Amino acid sequence: MRLKPLVASLAATFALSISGSVVADEGMWQPHQLPELESILKAKGLEISVDSISKLTEFPMNAVISLGGCTASFVSPKGLVVTNHHCIYGSVQYNSTPENNILENGFLAKTPAEDLPAAPGARVYVTETVTNVTDQVIKGTETLSAKARYDALEKNEKALVAQCEADESYRCNVYSFHGGLEFYLIKSLEIKDVRLAYTPAMGVGKYGGDIDNWMWPRHTGDFGFYRAYVGKDGKPAEYNVDNVPYVPDSYLSVSAKGVQEGDFVMVTGYPGRTNRYRIAAEVDNVFNNSYPKARVHNSKYVSLIEENSEDGSKARIAYESTIAGYNNYIKNYGSMIESFKKGTMFERKKQFEQELTNWINSDSTRKEQYGSVLGELSELIAQSQEHSERRRMLGYVHRSQMISTARRLYRLGYEKQKPNSERESGYQERDLPRIKAGLERMTRRYDSKVDKAILLHFLELYAALPKEERFSDVDNVFSVQNGFDKATQSALLDSMYEQSRLDNATVRNSLFEQTFSQLNQSQDPFVQYAKAIFKVMKAEEDKSKALAGKLQAARPELMSAIIAFNKAKNKPVYADANSTLRVTYGTVGGYSPQDGLVATPFTSLEGLLAKNTDVDPFNAPEKLQEQIKAKLFGDYTGGMNTVPVNFLSNVDTTGGNSGSPTLNGKAELVGLLFDGVYESIIGDWDYNPELNRSIHVDSRYMLWVMDKVDNAQNLLDEMKIVK
Amino acid sequence: MRLKPLVASLAATFALSISGSVVADEGMWQPHQLPELESILKAKGLEISVDSISKLTEFPMNAVISLGGCTASFVSPKGLVVTNHHCIYGSVQYNSTPENNILENGFLAKTPAEDLPAAPGARVYVTETVTNVTDQVIKGTETLSAKARYDALEKNEKALVAQCEADESYRCNVYSFHGGLEFYLIKSLEIKDVRLAYTPAMGVGKYGGDIDNWMWPRHTGDFGFYRAYVGKDGKPAEYNVDNVPYVPDSYLSVSAKGVQEGDFVMVTGYPGRTNRYRIAAEVDNVFNNSYPKARVHNSKYVSLIEENSEDGSKARIAYESTIAGYNNYIKNYGSMIESFKKGTMFERKKQFEQELTNWINSDSTRKEQYGSVLGELSELIAQSQEHSERRRMLGYVHRSQMISTARRLYRLGYEKQKPNSERESGYQERDLPRIKAGLERMTRRYDSKVDKAILLHFLELYAALPKEERFSDVDNVFSVQNGFDKATQSALLDSMYEQSRLDNATVRNSLFEQTFSQLNQSQDPFVQYAKAIFKVMKAEEDKSKALAGKLQAARPELMSAIIAFNKAKNKPVYADANSTLRVTYGTVGGYSPQDGLVATPFTSLEGLLAKNTDVDPFNAPEKLQEQIKAKLFGDYTGGMNTVPVNFLSNVDTTGGNSGSPTLNGKAELVGLLFDGVYESIIGDWDYNPELNRSIHVDSRYMLWVMDKVDNAQNLLDEMKIVK
Repeated sequence: MRLKPLVASLAATFALSISGSVVADEGMWQPHQLPELESILKAKGLEISVDSISKLTEFPMNAVISLGGCTASFVSPKGLVVTNHHCIYGSVQYNSTPENNILENGFLAKTPAEDLPAAPGARVYVTETVTNVTDQVIKGTETLSAKARYDALEKNEKALVAQCEADESYRCNVYSFHGGLEFYLIKSLEIKDVRLAYTPAMGVGKYGGDIDNWMWPRHTGDFGFYRAYVGKDGKPAEYNVDNVPYVPDSYLSVSAKGVQEGDFVMVTGYPGRTNRYRIAAEVDNVFNNSYPKARVHNSKYVSLIEENSEDGSKARIAYESTIAGYNNYIKNYGSMIESFKKGTMFERKKQFEQELTNWINSDSTRKEQYGSVLGELSELIAQSQEHSERRRMLGYVHRSQMISTARRLYRLGYEKQKPNSERESGYQERDLPRIKAGLERMTRRYDSKVDKAILLHFLELYAALPKEERFSDVDNVFSVQNGFDKATQSALLDSMYEQSRLDNATVRNSLFEQTFSQLNQSQDPFVQYAKAIFKVMKAEEDKSKALAGKLQAARPELMSAIIAFNKAKNKPVYADANSTLRVTYGTVGGYSPQDGLVATPFTSLEGLLAKNTDVDPFNAPEKLQEQIKAKLFGDYTGGMNTVPVNFLSNVDTTGGNSGSPTLNGKAELVGLLFDGVYESIIGDWDYNPELNRSIHVDSRYMLWVMDKVDNAQNLLDEMKIVK
Repeated sequence: MRLKPLVASLAATFALSISGSVVADEGMWQPHQLPELESILKAKGLEISVDSISKLTEFPMNAVISLGGCTASFVSPKGLVVTNHHCIYGSVQYNSTPENNILENGFLAKTPAEDLPAAPGARVYVTETVTNVTDQVIKGTETLSAKARYDALEKNEKALVAQCEADESYRCNVYSFHGGLEFYLIKSLEIKDVRLAYTPAMGVGKYGGDIDNWMWPRHTGDFGFYRAYVGKDGKPAEYNVDNVPYVPDSYLSVSAKGVQEGDFVMVTGYPGRTNRYRIAAEVDNVFNNSYPKARVHNSKYVSLIEENSEDGSKARIAYESTIAGYNNYIKNYGSMIESFKKGTMFERKKQFEQELTNWINSDSTRKEQYGSVLGELSELIAQSQEHSERRRMLGYVHRSQMISTARRLYRLGYEKQKPNSERESGYQERDLPRIKAGLERMTRRYDSKVDKAILLHFLELYAALPKEERFSDVDNVFSVQNGFDKATQSALLDSMYEQSRLDNATVRNSLFEQTFSQLNQSQDPFVQYAKAIFKVMKAEEDKSKALAGKLQAARPELMSAIIAFNKAKNKPVYADANSTLRVTYGTVGGYSPQDGLVATPFTSLEGLLAKNTDVDPFNAPEKLQEQIKAKLFGDYTGGMNTVPVNFLSNVDTTGGNSGSPTLNGKAELVGLLFDGVYESIIGDWDYNPELNRSIHVDSRYMLWVMDKVDNAQNLLDEMKIVK
């Protein structure tokens, strides 16, 4: 499945820039940009008014919601929410017991009273306002540079967020667009009582599992339903039996007719992160250095887990989701490296930069304004790549759960000394529940033998760096000042793991409450490590913020140039994805993944059956198989001789779009976006019109399963089905 | 690649029978049957006279030759022979040295004088006459049954062969058709001086290697050229510098225009073995018992080799071709088991048998003639499946090279006591060179540690059989009368391997020369094992011959019924493949390997380049890559925008067809058959019109490589190219 976007942090948000030519159906558009594209959208098949899809508070946009990392939409007047099965997976797992294994068998609440509470922390965010706050964010930073600029921006943003969140029904965030050229404050209603209304069986919702992940042909029924609840006063409230279903301003109708090859579709959702405007130097570094190295180290990471935990053991089970996550990344990076080698992205980047430079230099005003931006940015990028091997290796060392937990707790103690508004992002009061949940989670996901083996391996790689690249504060704690001796260092780590109490949840919780001075007295060897390296790591962080401050000044300059360059060619420019609401449009259709092979746009029930082995992950429920064999297709064929299961389109999506409604020209829900094909993984960097295909679960399949397999008549009745 | 057919032995040749409905382009037709299909062939696109392709001594059939296990064809008046690269692979390897690595780099003789001798034993067989000898073979057997019948048939056949081979320029064989309903004596000129004229580099001829084996999309340039030489008198002769190129009666022209989707093609060649007429009970046993078990044991076999030989060690290298062979079988069986589960072959078999039975029973004459055949055959099949687990396990035990060598030598000594004509097939004078070559080969393919580990493993499985299923003579030698103890049996084997000298080529050669009584005195523990079990194994063999004798009587009866049944429906019946010359026809076209995917019929140079990694097996020569990048397609596009590399058609082929010329309606060579797609591996049992696709190397690609990459102008000049 698509990688979930990282939590947005300002520094990370400052995306780089360069490319920008609008071709084919590329583009993740901010709704307010859509009127610019009206003629294209109308020609492609948009039937409703382009104005309506440009306004957040009108249908259909106000039916599209965020789950934080996934997208969803309202599909009934009673707060019913449809999204991907993999987006509600945690909540299904949370409610599943050996006696009532709803993860395996599915679950249907026959009335809202039977809805089950979602996993702790599950939220529905309804975007209510999007305000351009560029002036307020920039205010007072114009004359600053480096870290001062970074800090000032951060301070302004925090103030805006704090002011907005004064009404505790809302969650607010400031998002940067075009690498910091514009800032928007997005205010969303935060619905805190989210419940599980319906999920199909795992053999539908995760059919094909990790084997089919990112693959076509695909037969995954990746859908499930939440219901949003609010207090009797209509305001968000924590879970309470007396809460009532939330009444959305609007909701989507669901099509039982579906789409055909060549039909117009659009996807509205919250794509997480793309890097379409990075400069050639960054692309070079990422694809020829970072990704290949990450692949090697991540593969080693997985094999270290496997070598140090027996198959089926408690330790192995604790790391299963970690392994799945790493394998997902390994496959992801593998695809991108492959696509990069086969493709021409790098050449096109360089060519674009040359064309842009020519255009800038061909006019004296432009030359004065933009003449130096590309050079300045390249210089900053080169700086940012200094000491990258050290950062990489120390990064892996610090992935040890003992170290990362100790560092997080120590940092929290440090930040807690400050007033809330001045604390580092991620350590404010609003962030504490998430930190606490992480401390809790470690109980289920940690094994000391595995953790130590990983730490020992990466410590060895760190210790192999030239002395001038190492930090003496790190070296001292691990005694690697004069090189690494496996037996010695292993014994040292053994004694650290033996002494530490961080593997105990109660201990972690008590450290969570401690003051900074208490933490400074801690005898825990990992807390002592966190303390020992705190100063030097803080200095590194400050350097990185100073660089980010410079980048925050340089990237928008380049982005301005790119926008102007495109404007001269009459081409609108979309911003890189940043977890804000976007619209992408395109056409239902297949592609040729390789010479001699064509992926056709639909899969069918018969194809699902042919793939079925009755062994996970190809284990469709018995009843589903019977209904296929009996050809009980109902009114869900849309004129085909079968019920289509999944379909392909060329819409431009990425992680975070998971669960997004796929709409036809009338804004009826015809599917749910849930994945991209293997060849489109590089799409986060480069949209290739020939290979970029998104995978949707067909609304006909969803309705058919609900009707013919799971008897979810109560939900079908409350939804508006277009027949 | 396609599995090479087993050497035809009479018992094996008695194929079973049942199915027989002619659909789509199914069928491997004997040339003399083609006039029956004239209207179909003409409608599909045959332009030349159907009579000409029905006659072996006329063009184009007399240009089609056998290499023994592969097919080939003459393509010049100077004895130039084109076939698959994998068919000449042994000869290329034989001539390759570290200093002159022609396997890796390819080879071109600029004049015939530069042709290199092919590997020892390489032969070109030119079929000259095919004579129906049914009466002579059957003569005197009519009143016999069981083993007496088997022996009498064998004797008649041997006499026919000996008489025919009196002229030592010829190799003769009697082939049974329709399970013994008809017998044909085939007399072929045996050209013994075969030379290597040209091979492309491995990065062309084996492009994609084992990874792409049986797969589509495919980009393999699976072609290479021999030249046939004869003595100055025009008669076959052993290699001699003074020999001259053989002048064939005719040769094929090669098309530079190629084919398009939907075009008619036919393939003439020597398919090895199919089982299309086996009865349902046999199919059930093979797919639900034999193949799944073989897959498990063969996989274990490979892992035993791998566990007992280090990567890159001498031992591992010795077993590399064994591993490749086993892996080929594992993949092959895996595909067949998969296809069987997904498909409906078993149901259709049962239905056909029911229809046949109904038809037989609906007429009293028919009922009298055929009423009992299916029942009798079923009874014999049930008998043949008795003790199958014992045969299977002992079969694996006897795969130990020490045991198989000892048994072969001991049997040879036994047979040598008889006059040549009375010896068991495989031990006659004509077979001795092959036996000797096998003894020689063991030097390069044997390691005692590996051999012992395999023997120990399968001995354990054998020992686990119930006592009444074991042979006491076997049990005694290995001391497993009272069960298997790993340490004890391992020590026993250690001492056997230590004492035996069979790992020494000189010792093997001297045993090859020994008389039976000398062999009976041998102190070699493995020869002693061969002696100890000889009597009981001979008795088993006799039982199996007795059963074969009964099957030889029953199968033709059933086959007669099937032919009559089909004749009543006006459908001609083709015989199962048996390594004799056949013609199959069809159309160029793709297929859908699975729901959501379509295989298109051609691959292209650009696809080859996209697949290229410069790492074996995706390492096309530099020059080839450059020519593609420069789009130097020459006159080899046939109207496409590229040079097609491989193509698909629905012709009906199997192992032994490798290297067969693919002809267009004018009998011009448009490609070479070299493989089938993964989904068609089960085709040996059941032709599925939707999934059965053969893979051909396109003549345009072959000519393009010769012209633009390898500068084989001399060969192109001597060939007749149709532009």
